[in-house]
Amino acid sequence: MRAVDLIVKKRDGGALSREEIEFLIDGYVRSEVPDYQISSLAMAVFFRGMSFEETGFLTRAMIASGDSIDLAAVPGPLVDKHSTGGVGDKVSLILAPLAAACGCVVPMMSGRALGHTGGTLDKLESIPGYRTDLSVERFREVLLRCGFAMTGQSERIVPADRLLYALRDVTGTVESIPLITASIMSKKFAEGAQALVFDVKCGSGAFMKSQAEARALAVSLTRTGASLGRKVRSVISDMDQPLGRMVGNFLEVRESAEVLQGRGPEDLRRLTLRLTAHMLVLGGLAANLERAEALCRQRLEDGSAWRRFLDNVAAQGGRPETLLEPAKGPRAPRTLALRSPRSGYLVRLEAYRFGLASGLLGASRSRKEDPVWPDVGIELAKTAGDPVREGEELCLLHGRDPQRLEEARLLLEPAVTVADQPPTPRRLVLEEIDADALGKD
Amino acid sequence: MRAVDLIVKKRDGGALSREEIEFLIDGYVRSEVPDYQISSLAMAVFFRGMSFEETGFLTRAMIASGDSIDLAAVPGPLVDKHSTGGVGDKVSLILAPLAAACGCVVPMMSGRALGHTGGTLDKLESIPGYRTDLSVERFREVLLRCGFAMTGQSERIVPADRLLYALRDVTGTVESIPLITASIMSKKFAEGAQALVFDVKCGSGAFMKSQAEARALAVSLTRTGASLGRKVRSVISDMDQPLGRMVGNFLEVRESAEVLQGRGPEDLRRLTLRLTAHMLVLGGLAANLERAEALCRQRLEDGSAWRRFLDNVAAQGGRPETLLEPAKGPRAPRTLALRSPRSGYLVRLEAYRFGLASGLLGASRSRKEDPVWPDVGIELAKTAGDPVREGEELCLLHGRDPQRLEEARLLLEPAVTVADQPPTPRRLVLEEIDADALGKD
Repeated sequence: MRAVDLIVKKRDGGALSREEIEFLIDGYVRSEVPDYQISSLAMAVFFRGMSFEETGFLTRAMIASGDSIDLAAVPGPLVDKHSTGGVGDKVSLILAPLAAACGCVVPMMSGRALGHTGGTLDKLESIPGYRTDLSVERFREVLLRCGFAMTGQSERIVPADRLLYALRDVTGTVESIPLITASIMSKKFAEGAQALVFDVKCGSGAFMKSQAEARALAVSLTRTGASLGRKVRSVISDMDQPLGRMVGNFLEVRESAEVLQGRGPEDLRRLTLRLTAHMLVLGGLAANLERAEALCRQRLEDGSAWRRFLDNVAAQGGRPETLLEPAKGPRAPRTLALRSPRSGYLVRLEAYRFGLASGLLGASRSRKEDPVWPDVGIELAKTAGDPVREGEELCLLHGRDPQRLEEARLLLEPAVTVADQPPTPRRLVLEEIDADALGKD
Repeated sequence: MRAVDLIVKKRDGGALSREEIEFLIDGYVRSEVPDYQISSLAMAVFFRGMSFEETGFLTRAMIASGDSIDLAAVPGPLVDKHSTGGVGDKVSLILAPLAAACGCVVPMMSGRALGHTGGTLDKLESIPGYRTDLSVERFREVLLRCGFAMTGQSERIVPADRLLYALRDVTGTVESIPLITASIMSKKFAEGAQALVFDVKCGSGAFMKSQAEARALAVSLTRTGASLGRKVRSVISDMDQPLGRMVGNFLEVRESAEVLQGRGPEDLRRLTLRLTAHMLVLGGLAANLERAEALCRQRLEDGSAWRRFLDNVAAQGGRPETLLEPAKGPRAPRTLALRSPRSGYLVRLEAYRFGLASGLLGASRSRKEDPVWPDVGIELAKTAGDPVREGEELCLLHGRDPQRLEEARLLLEPAVTVADQPPTPRRLVLEEIDADALGKD
């Protein structure tokens, strides 16, 4: 088998076999297939695509490039959720303890903040003492104790993805649905999950700007999962505006704690319940979404989800008291308000600019080496649909440096729209995609 | 400027500017732009193409990557011809002395035999003593003395093409019209030609199998040449069957000597006269093709073209006596005949198989390291249109090894078609493409 023949086959619209894809990925990881062949193959895939079956083969070959975490000894349905990333998206922090409180086992491996999107690891690490660098042994222990565990990705999990992603990043081949699918899916299945719910974000603050693009990715994830014999569902949710009212690391932890205690903003609560309900149905813990949501509400009301979270924070080295008394937690030294330019209704907050502004304040990185601060971010005083008066505070920026605060405020000015009429209500869940409903590939 | 942004621009259908293409090619040659970016760019070009203007920028940037031969001191119109390669294509050996005898100066840099196609350098080197590794100084001297000189490409001419071609060869990006155009054109202009005639071969023995593909390349060569302000014409000629009656190195030299002495096969003579006539018109030595062809015929008849050839052979170290008495030249130790399976008319000889069989006998290389023999090849006893009897010799294979001779014969058996009716006459020149006639890009 020669790599060049497989590149030509894909270039000319052919489908690669399982053996051919294994040859390429295995060879790439062993440095036997050079990067200049993989980059031209990736560009051919960009133009020609891959069938769901091929994408499944790619996912499998990528998983096989490294270690997988064996969670067979852990009792209970192993279900995880993955979001494609957004602004103010702290769903994982609420959903993991909630799903665990309902009987799921959630082995969650998360990423870091980069660009305009936040990262679950950075949010968790804003809790003083919280560790996300668990060994596999410790990960398993925490999972058994709390029903969920939160960690970063081990270097030994899916090394092919790290290599491939770094190459795609510099060769113009990031935006390919099958390559994105295999990248996401390989990591999630290698971490030990049996079933997966994907939250495919869509809108200005998401990687997928249009609903058509988001749908293409959601269908690819769901069908590729099915081709691998896994239970997968995808939800397309709105990310045109920030989720909830907090953007930043510890700010988002505080808001998550609110929701876990039965309070917090309605949009965040609603989306989290829906995604958790899908996990419960996939895990066989509820017959349908209505019953699953009812179970979730019960676990929020009876305090068991909140207790799971506090228990996990303690198990992973964090100090639960910063959650019980958030005023004692990290707090940025300076604030600056963004005020309404006129009276009317707040009709839109453009998520992308909110994400960039939060990153500028230090909540995310523009390069991998940059530091991330726990205490900075943006707190929305008003949200879409609220009536506002001229000069009234729309949001409060938390920062460390006055210059950066002013830059972030200027960045946000064009991100808010105030109009005479209130907006049409926001649709949060745009589509729900189930492999069974899609039928066969 | 970042290479990845230029890759994405091309991937999304944009046109690269002159500065952008210079940045990429210059950076590639200096090892500042890595091969994995150039290979993904090449694949994006495969799918998106390039305008003739962009292809011109690429050609220019490739020429600038190395030395150019300065022939300004050489009097007379500098005109060259390039063929895309075929089977039995010995046109250059006749055309160069003929054009020189008519007043052109022909600075010819040629390539070697690879795969099923022959190479002018290997043919010339089959003349005992003939040298094709001329220094630039010696090249200029031979050019001044004979009106034409034949040499291999210097390492310092267009190094970008050697790098790019080696990369394209292993990344599935050979078959791209703009990349082929820039590769051919950059070498030809760097060698000092002012005007060019392209012989784009088409059919089973050519790189371009269909007339549509051949036309796309011919138009690209012609228009890109025009965008560079050069005079360029392209002829699309048939390569479905071998050209002339000899395939092999010294066999083709012998046949070329025949034509230069006013004999030889009609198809070879006709195509050579036409291509040479285009050179004379481009060089301003004849007002139109008819007058140019008349001048060519005169120079063949008066023996001046033949004398130019003998003079060049002597100037480049070869022994002219092997041409005056070909029986004293290289001759393979063994022969084997391919005989007609039935009586009827020979209607087709598939050039591709003839090229492969000749290569198998040792006239070409399957890998760059392989040796090439001067004396092996195939001599056609019959050609398309000839009546044949069952068992009559169709062609004679010249070889060194009995096993290889038998393999070559078996390879040729399906290459000949004998039918009850004679074929329709062969059209040799399929199209002639002139930039002026095409109009503006």
